[in-house]
Amino acid sequence: MKKKIGTQSFILPSCPRIVSSGVFVGPKEGEGPLGRLFDTVVKDDTLGLDSFEQAESRMLESSVRLALSKIGCSPADADLFMGGDLLSQIISAGFAARELRTPFLGMYGACSTMAESLITASMLTDGGFSELSVCGASSHFSSSEREFRYPLEMGTQTTPTSQRTVTGAGAVAVASEGRKLPGSGYSTVRITGGTVGRVCDYGITDASNMGAAMAPAAASTICAHLDDRELPPEHYSRIFTGDLGSFGSELLYELCLSKGYDISRVHEDCGCMIFSPEQKVVCGGSGCGCCASVLCAEILPGLESGKYERVLFVATGALLSPISALQGESIPAVAHAAVLERMEA
Amino acid sequence: MKKKIGTQSFILPSCPRIVSSGVFVGPKEGEGPLGRLFDTVVKDDTLGLDSFEQAESRMLESSVRLALSKIGCSPADADLFMGGDLLSQIISAGFAARELRTPFLGMYGACSTMAESLITASMLTDGGFSELSVCGASSHFSSSEREFRYPLEMGTQTTPTSQRTVTGAGAVAVASEGRKLPGSGYSTVRITGGTVGRVCDYGITDASNMGAAMAPAAASTICAHLDDRELPPEHYSRIFTGDLGSFGSELLYELCLSKGYDISRVHEDCGCMIFSPEQKVVCGGSGCGCCASVLCAEILPGLESGKYERVLFVATGALLSPISALQGESIPAVAHAAVLERMEA
Repeated sequence: MKKKIGTQSFILPSCPRIVSSGVFVGPKEGEGPLGRLFDTVVKDDTLGLDSFEQAESRMLESSVRLALSKIGCSPADADLFMGGDLLSQIISAGFAARELRTPFLGMYGACSTMAESLITASMLTDGGFSELSVCGASSHFSSSEREFRYPLEMGTQTTPTSQRTVTGAGAVAVASEGRKLPGSGYSTVRITGGTVGRVCDYGITDASNMGAAMAPAAASTICAHLDDRELPPEHYSRIFTGDLGSFGSELLYELCLSKGYDISRVHEDCGCMIFSPEQKVVCGGSGCGCCASVLCAEILPGLESGKYERVLFVATGALLSPISALQGESIPAVAHAAVLERMEA
Repeated sequence: MKKKIGTQSFILPSCPRIVSSGVFVGPKEGEGPLGRLFDTVVKDDTLGLDSFEQAESRMLESSVRLALSKIGCSPADADLFMGGDLLSQIISAGFAARELRTPFLGMYGACSTMAESLITASMLTDGGFSELSVCGASSHFSSSEREFRYPLEMGTQTTPTSQRTVTGAGAVAVASEGRKLPGSGYSTVRITGGTVGRVCDYGITDASNMGAAMAPAAASTICAHLDDRELPPEHYSRIFTGDLGSFGSELLYELCLSKGYDISRVHEDCGCMIFSPEQKVVCGGSGCGCCASVLCAEILPGLESGKYERVLFVATGALLSPISALQGESIPAVAHAAVLERMEA
């Protein structure tokens, strides 16, 4: 059976099951519109540890353990842990993998990492290489600000296009049809396909304008997906982007319209969902943990409950580094898409 | 057919073909024992560009283009580009992917990235998701030293356990059985299986002692592979590790012996192969580009020519970051293994 469709997309004939998720977020995310939907809202974003980096890694590790525990499994039961984060050399994921001891494939797609890990894990599941895998991604406001922008102690003012990095970690367990599980998680959520993104760069150099840097990549992947699959946007209950924010979402609509697709009626952006305007986060949330958290707290439960029938989950990542920014490079971006469907057992 | 074997290993029933490789290295690598085997030895390790980072990215991009051109293909013909490098947020690979425009999955496993990308691409090929993919990894002495250790301008003395980061980039093209190719590359090299590593940490904190940090991960993956497949080390013509160097290789022998395997008679380390003692690199070469270069220059051609019949290619990565090192964290490491075999057409 041909699994590759068009130039960038693929289908998953075995429809791997999304059986569980786990999510930890920080206090500010807990005060947002989705606050009561997260598994755990931590009161102290250091978790009492010595550094924000340690706290981020611990949150990622905890979200993986939680996702697996919901289905009666431990990290030793999983064939693979795939994931990453925003920090240099993805230390949050690397140090989490050290504690979990699950065979580990590190992924880096900046804020697209959750979708990248999810589609890769699903292809490996469909291919027969994994019966139970877990994908995770995390970000932390305080580790990320000092990595990519300014020391927190400077108290730098935000610009009108800036977004707030979400403090959060999400993990999703993917199982093959035949894998028996001791516990019961989601029973109707499947991943049925996806689209691997190409890297786009429209020349944006402002590290406080991630929405503009990432919108072209999101538009490229969404339009490639709809082209490859010959589908209208309304095929999906929702097309969720990761963290374009309000400014980036407007750009996305324009870019998709120029390619013949009006996605505005079915589109929502995780970065706009996780915070309310009253929380003064300017254009919304960002970071690997943004769409990972919203996926686990809203999208997957929404599919399980029947709120959504079919969703295109499109995470976008800005592929800059502190060094490339200081060297004056523009910001390339990539977006990966996963097709998530409700399928009655 | 069951593809997962034991706890961490897998087989690839379709035996994806390794059809081509491309490798670019710096001047010092060109003066080493393998000098005449590299496709291209650059005379100026900046390539005339503005930064070492740009030069590294260009070398990776060029190695991908070269590998594909040898089989009469361009980046537009490949289904996937998978790879990474050592720099923060894998900018060498991200910027290369921007130029190549091939759908991109960024991987991070530090110096294990070449093996990580190769086994993942091969599983996706066997699973039916890719007919032609290209994997690549790179490192650069000058971008890496200032990223992980000290500014070059300090002229810091090396310690007795230090290794020299290889300036080099290697790319390998993987094709499915059915994929017709316009040009002819390797005709007998196949990837038939592999082992996904677990993260190990023996508490090493010295960023100038990578061999000691990575040897436990290499031993873990090699012994897991031999256990899972129920094989003696001599099943392989060679077991190549990525860049343990001379000190790390000694530790590897001891660790494997303690688990019942004497690998010393079949083992070689790419870090010890790429430089000669006269080049004063202390314990040998290191970096993503080390084993990627040796794979493309010596191992794959050796399989094609019949010098080797069957090889276990084990790349090891140290999962530290500049921040984790400054925060006093120890250095976790991971190793991934690929089984490469000569199979007559």
